[in-house]
Amino acid sequence: MVVTFEPQDYLSEKAKSRSQSHFAVLDPETAPPGFKPHPSPISFHFGKPNEGFFPIEQIDLTLADFPFQNYLKSGITNGSLESLLNVKGRSDAYGQNQYTETNAEWEKVYRRGSGSDNKAKIPKKGASKDLIDLADGLQYSEYRGYPQLLNFTKQFIKRLHNPGYEEWDTFMCQGASDGLLKIADVLFNEGDIVLVEEFTFPPVLGQIAALGAIAVPVKADLSTKAGNDGIDVDYLSNLLESWGDVYPQYKGAKIKAFYTIPTGQNPTGFTQSDETRTRVYELAKKYDFLILEDDPYGYISLPPYSAPERALSLDQFLTIDEYLASHLAPSYLRYDTEGRVLRVETFSKVFAPGLRLGFVVAHKKFLNAMGKFQLLRPPSGTSQLIFQNTVEKLGGVDGFINWILKVRETYVHRKNLLYHHIKESDAYKKKYVDIIDPLAGMFMSVLIRIPKDEDQEKKMGLLTWKLIAHGINAVPGIKMASDKSFSKDNANFFRLTFAAAENDAEILEGAKRFTNGVEDFFNNDLNY
Amino acid sequence: MVVTFEPQDYLSEKAKSRSQSHFAVLDPETAPPGFKPHPSPISFHFGKPNEGFFPIEQIDLTLADFPFQNYLKSGITNGSLESLLNVKGRSDAYGQNQYTETNAEWEKVYRRGSGSDNKAKIPKKGASKDLIDLADGLQYSEYRGYPQLLNFTKQFIKRLHNPGYEEWDTFMCQGASDGLLKIADVLFNEGDIVLVEEFTFPPVLGQIAALGAIAVPVKADLSTKAGNDGIDVDYLSNLLESWGDVYPQYKGAKIKAFYTIPTGQNPTGFTQSDETRTRVYELAKKYDFLILEDDPYGYISLPPYSAPERALSLDQFLTIDEYLASHLAPSYLRYDTEGRVLRVETFSKVFAPGLRLGFVVAHKKFLNAMGKFQLLRPPSGTSQLIFQNTVEKLGGVDGFINWILKVRETYVHRKNLLYHHIKESDAYKKKYVDIIDPLAGMFMSVLIRIPKDEDQEKKMGLLTWKLIAHGINAVPGIKMASDKSFSKDNANFFRLTFAAAENDAEILEGAKRFTNGVEDFFNNDLNY
Repeated sequence: MVVTFEPQDYLSEKAKSRSQSHFAVLDPETAPPGFKPHPSPISFHFGKPNEGFFPIEQIDLTLADFPFQNYLKSGITNGSLESLLNVKGRSDAYGQNQYTETNAEWEKVYRRGSGSDNKAKIPKKGASKDLIDLADGLQYSEYRGYPQLLNFTKQFIKRLHNPGYEEWDTFMCQGASDGLLKIADVLFNEGDIVLVEEFTFPPVLGQIAALGAIAVPVKADLSTKAGNDGIDVDYLSNLLESWGDVYPQYKGAKIKAFYTIPTGQNPTGFTQSDETRTRVYELAKKYDFLILEDDPYGYISLPPYSAPERALSLDQFLTIDEYLASHLAPSYLRYDTEGRVLRVETFSKVFAPGLRLGFVVAHKKFLNAMGKFQLLRPPSGTSQLIFQNTVEKLGGVDGFINWILKVRETYVHRKNLLYHHIKESDAYKKKYVDIIDPLAGMFMSVLIRIPKDEDQEKKMGLLTWKLIAHGINAVPGIKMASDKSFSKDNANFFRLTFAAAENDAEILEGAKRFTNGVEDFFNNDLNY
Repeated sequence: MVVTFEPQDYLSEKAKSRSQSHFAVLDPETAPPGFKPHPSPISFHFGKPNEGFFPIEQIDLTLADFPFQNYLKSGITNGSLESLLNVKGRSDAYGQNQYTETNAEWEKVYRRGSGSDNKAKIPKKGASKDLIDLADGLQYSEYRGYPQLLNFTKQFIKRLHNPGYEEWDTFMCQGASDGLLKIADVLFNEGDIVLVEEFTFPPVLGQIAALGAIAVPVKADLSTKAGNDGIDVDYLSNLLESWGDVYPQYKGAKIKAFYTIPTGQNPTGFTQSDETRTRVYELAKKYDFLILEDDPYGYISLPPYSAPERALSLDQFLTIDEYLASHLAPSYLRYDTEGRVLRVETFSKVFAPGLRLGFVVAHKKFLNAMGKFQLLRPPSGTSQLIFQNTVEKLGGVDGFINWILKVRETYVHRKNLLYHHIKESDAYKKKYVDIIDPLAGMFMSVLIRIPKDEDQEKKMGLLTWKLIAHGINAVPGIKMASDKSFSKDNANFFRLTFAAAENDAEILEGAKRFTNGVEDFFNNDLNY
């Protein structure tokens, strides 16, 4: 028997009951016989102010050539590690004089002598078709997002992940959280089961609970042995096999989806291997659940740690072909031949969080259901117009990927710096800590080797305060556990991010404070 | 017995149960004895990319001096009505050549010889304290909005409406709809009653229903007699007095709020008089309900119709003092001595809808409850930074009010044009139509005098299609009825907006098509 996957079957009752209509729009089927539309109708119906009322006539964007370019301009010739580590404090990099200076050397190297400028002009009207002018971008817009962005994101996904079936599309949302909120809303009924990673992004748990659905954790494997990718697929397989025995209280409940952050996992930093993804997708088919792939960091692929030898090199970044062939982890979309995967992306990490802009990639029928969500608000038009005009100026899909590769290179350097300075510490040498080497993203988890006979939870709590007293803020694993009692003996780690630091020196200082704090704690017999 | 108004008592069960916490933040009460915070902590906890990763280095805004300035530049000397009516089509006003031209005359008149430019530069870092730089504006932000905007909106409300009690504050949201969604969420339990105007903004009804609350209509008085302001306060008073008799099925239910659009009502266009507001507020106190004041259009105050004599005059706008003394309708906040009023504003109509930016003004305890809404997303940072930098360049609170006065003047002119051309039509002279003269906003309702013995609903339906065939789209009243069966004999009107038209000529053409369509319909014995 061949069962055809049918997205409608997975919609929540609420989503199924919604109709799509606007009070200012008539149903064409109610037209009287003989009705003929007018060739050039006038709109007195929508309460939409003409663009002539907008107080802005033009926006000009000045783009960056490279992340942290002002900071880097001070050491353009790929200087020694020490020279960059000397830059301290937040104010140095953006001193006013330095900022407005034009650097001929810089122009030559980073614009590749192309002579193209780095300014994008956004006029009130008359932008070319891939751009968004102010008359459109500052106006009310479609719930799904501007056609220009829908087209861009579709080309972007095709280039990078090329889903294994035809009927997929994209849908703009206000960052990943908003996309996840809308997905949860159209999928989950009260009592539905959502499998989640043992440690995960807490707001999603809140959304699941708000809908009356039930989050059930999938065991994480936090060992640092080679090849471990964090997710215990055998555990998942056994759980599904013997569901009713493990969770008699949920026997017969619908397991609707597995929510996963497969690449640069938050908080653990793990990236699922191809084999893991293949096995998980097979389980999804066998047990008939959806995969909600949350991937905010995946484009930041990171090679295994190697000791940094010098300051960030600005002419070393990958070509797009190299990146696609051997660096970028595959989305679950690649394995998806049916439409069982709903992927959420955000531009927060590879462009800027303040845009509040991201998108969902999924089967059209799921996106249609999201489009009927009456409380839905489209993302800011201002954000969409700034995003679209920037990426087009960068050179469209490939230009944006090239920008991502520069961002990525910066993160590679930062990861190696942080890893290196922890590895060189006494705390590491004394085996108080161990590092999960992240192969993507912006988080590094550091395991704390508290002896087995100690009260793990209590000791981790004390150590957290110890670290704060040492001037370093990190997230203790238990704070991101989907079920605190399930994880109480598996949460001995801190999530550190190397995304926020102002410069290399701050990463070094952070690593020092962190490892000193841990050492201090152990030296004090695990007391504050 | 003196009963003190206590906002907490009005919160929904859901809102009461929420706590506010972020997984990366520790509760200070859990710190061990002897804990001392570090003087300069490093943040390895929040997954917040440093601003050095953002691809934009600078944004430059070019502001307008006046709405529709390019269109107006062609007739700067306040020409005859005929001269402006000759400008047709959407492309004329923003022809590329015309657009970039500098007009010395214009500079002299509209910048008042101040010599100040109309450019606002937004740097990556180092903006002065009332401005928002890119490092902040493109970053993750507080749920309540940027402090600069919270401060601006507070000063703005103080200047314009000066609430009658101390503990009020503002809260930024993604346009008015989002503010209303969040308010509804923190107030309404299943089964709560929300009084609504008979004709109102339909998405709010959807929000009320989604929470299981019940919208109950308050009769609208649509007569055009002098002094009528649309709301039948006697009806409301009697309804509350004899609640259990009128609605036995809702006897004992909590009447939680009255949702109203008091100024430039959508769709009717009415503006509640001072007397009405006083009486409604007294009823709110007596029957202990809240007032949800939705006011997207209220700043566009409109004097009673007078025949337009010439094209829009650009040097006639009101001073702020004149506007405050005798034009701006008072917010319910003025009457509010307790915190019973929750007001929602948007910048969609007086700045641009694409910002998706508005704010709520209410008692701090209500705003705190909104701040705990876990699914809440803050408005776009891009939008906030563009808004804030624009209004500061315009001159802060007073500068922005002056901009609003220019917008308002444009709407005054447009209303008079539309009213005039309907009034001069044969359809009006033959008494097929009557006009509700709006004293604020962007909507004008035109009543259709269908003879009493006809099937009103059916005839209005046919007329709607007739108008579409004539090339004019308008919203039939029934589409905005809160309860279609309640309103079936009171919905003989169309909502026309004069906001969207490209120019005066389009308003004239629209009025002509509308009245011709009506006449055609009546001449054809009320058949299509």
